[in-house]
Amino acid sequence: MEQRVSLITLGVRDLARARAFYEALGWRGQEVQETVFFQAGGLGLVLWGRRELAADCGLEKLAEGDGFGGITLAHNVRSPAEVDALMAAAERAGATVTRAARSSELGFYTGVFTDPDGHAWEIAHNPGFPLAADGTLTIPDFGAS
Amino acid sequence: MEQRVSLITLGVRDLARARAFYEALGWRGQEVQETVFFQAGGLGLVLWGRRELAADCGLEKLAEGDGFGGITLAHNVRSPAEVDALMAAAERAGATVTRAARSSELGFYTGVFTDPDGHAWEIAHNPGFPLAADGTLTIPDFGAS
Repeated sequence: MEQRVSLITLGVRDLARARAFYEALGWRGQEVQETVFFQAGGLGLVLWGRRELAADCGLEKLAEGDGFGGITLAHNVRSPAEVDALMAAAERAGATVTRAARSSELGFYTGVFTDPDGHAWEIAHNPGFPLAADGTLTIPDFGAS
Repeated sequence: MEQRVSLITLGVRDLARARAFYEALGWRGQEVQETVFFQAGGLGLVLWGRRELAADCGLEKLAEGDGFGGITLAHNVRSPAEVDALMAAAERAGATVTRAARSSELGFYTGVFTDPDGHAWEIAHNPGFPLAADGTLTIPDFGAS
């Protein structure tokens, strides 16, 4: 596993309110399918519905209680095989797999584990989000505002 | 506010266990004063006691309940005046200041706010953690292992 973070996703209760807050601080992003993407240096900061985020990560049970503060981290890799290898390595290291790796209709392949303190990491192969040689991630131009 | 994240801090219940987990995945960091620092691309990922993190951020009330999942983000700036300006801008934008900016005996100056969904951001001037012109942050060499 390379030592880097690709995405930080903040689960929010009101997407328009959350976006307005970050825009008031000068941030500019793109909204696609009820998700707002901000390029933040070499990674992406994402706003997405808290419930949707919890469900997508297999964390529904924690969604409204202790242990899920509504933030997940993602680590993007360069192939589906890397996703499988890293999910297996995390499980061997003591992680809990909360959602086994699966393909999505959008063409990416991702799994989610939690570390020993319950922090959620999505391991993702997403050809639509380019990774540079140094591991920095670029949010694509969705043509959205 | 520049559009970037400087640090991600994961609050943990057992620092040795947490560090061992990330090291089992190949990460290498430095432990200083019961805190583990990993360089993660252009930012730092930090492991620190969950209670200490909550107390430091003025989030004690949330520490064991809903709303604090044990992750905070930091945005480092280049002067104490920038901290004050950004804390004020965040408050105008609807943030809740959970810890007003203050100096520490270690020479840094930081404040903490939560966004409308309760996500905590520390705004920090820390001369010991160099910021490059492009905003990437370098964890210093503490001479620790």
